[in-house]
Amino acid sequence: MLFSPALTKLVESLRRLPGIGPKTALRLTFFILSMRSGEVEEMAKALVEARQKVKQCSRCRNLTEEELCPICQDSRRDSALLCIVQEPRDILVIEKTGQFRGLYFVLHGALSPVEGLGPDELKIPLLLQRLKEGVIEEVIVATNPNVEGDATAYYLAGLLKPLGIRVTRIGFGLPVGGDLEYADELTMARALEARREITS
Amino acid sequence: MLFSPALTKLVESLRRLPGIGPKTALRLTFFILSMRSGEVEEMAKALVEARQKVKQCSRCRNLTEEELCPICQDSRRDSALLCIVQEPRDILVIEKTGQFRGLYFVLHGALSPVEGLGPDELKIPLLLQRLKEGVIEEVIVATNPNVEGDATAYYLAGLLKPLGIRVTRIGFGLPVGGDLEYADELTMARALEARREITS
Repeated sequence: MLFSPALTKLVESLRRLPGIGPKTALRLTFFILSMRSGEVEEMAKALVEARQKVKQCSRCRNLTEEELCPICQDSRRDSALLCIVQEPRDILVIEKTGQFRGLYFVLHGALSPVEGLGPDELKIPLLLQRLKEGVIEEVIVATNPNVEGDATAYYLAGLLKPLGIRVTRIGFGLPVGGDLEYADELTMARALEARREITS
Repeated sequence: MLFSPALTKLVESLRRLPGIGPKTALRLTFFILSMRSGEVEEMAKALVEARQKVKQCSRCRNLTEEELCPICQDSRRDSALLCIVQEPRDILVIEKTGQFRGLYFVLHGALSPVEGLGPDELKIPLLLQRLKEGVIEEVIVATNPNVEGDATAYYLAGLLKPLGIRVTRIGFGLPVGGDLEYADELTMARALEARREITS
């Protein structure tokens, strides 16, 4: 129904992206036609270059264009503290708080037998090798608060505690600014469980 | 905060697209990194080729890769009936009904003094030239049901009626399958105005 094969191709290409349905793909396509030719070429170049240049940090598996990511290169960070996250984007969320000065390790997933993700796929051996260097004293497991993330956290705790490393999990409860009325029962249960004495 | 200039560039490039905010741009970027290299190159090529190849039909200003769009080339279409739309995508919506067998003219906008869109920008002279060929008997104005679309419709009616051409406007009212409860007052007012006798 589109009157140009090139248009149809672009719509189909954009539809491969997550959250982009047929209507959005069509809207984006029409917008792209209205952009300056140079801008479109720049966007195309940005796509290809990002895919080509970006690789994983050999130490923590964060995304970087160099051998080591800037966090691993930063000698001012606390090398006794390691935070384990599922995805590189989770690092951004934690860095934004300005509260964490340690290092990271990115699993690129969580344990999931269904998806064929086991310890080897998550590069747990690489993590263990790093922990055996003996510098890290505490590991904060910041995997997602769902079945896979929790299972991964328990698995890691079982694996790392025998090494004499303190293993903690990020806290769960009500989001700040949230409304009790809208909390689901699982979050509410976790919030009750995680209650703390009020100190004056 | 992204640990790679190439990533930052891609996020910024994607943010130029309509409806893509910083979070979506970041999500798309991470997804693009996970795509096969060949797939990303294909997407980049689709972007550039769509922008390069697609132009406006010299007769109706629909999008096409040829001199005339397939609708203008189709001799089976009713050349006495012309539908005026704001955007090329509106043609898709009308064609989907299977109810219209006439031809089109695309304004690529609506009259809008604020945006500097006057009759010349909408290529009204090109439309008039076509109407003066004397083949077209009825013009259906299918501009959007808002202030600019309505103003454009009235402007066109004033311009075309003296040429002895029937000028009609698409009908407005409640959308089929819609719920009266959720209708806004303007739509409801139009629906009342457009009421018809029930014939048995």
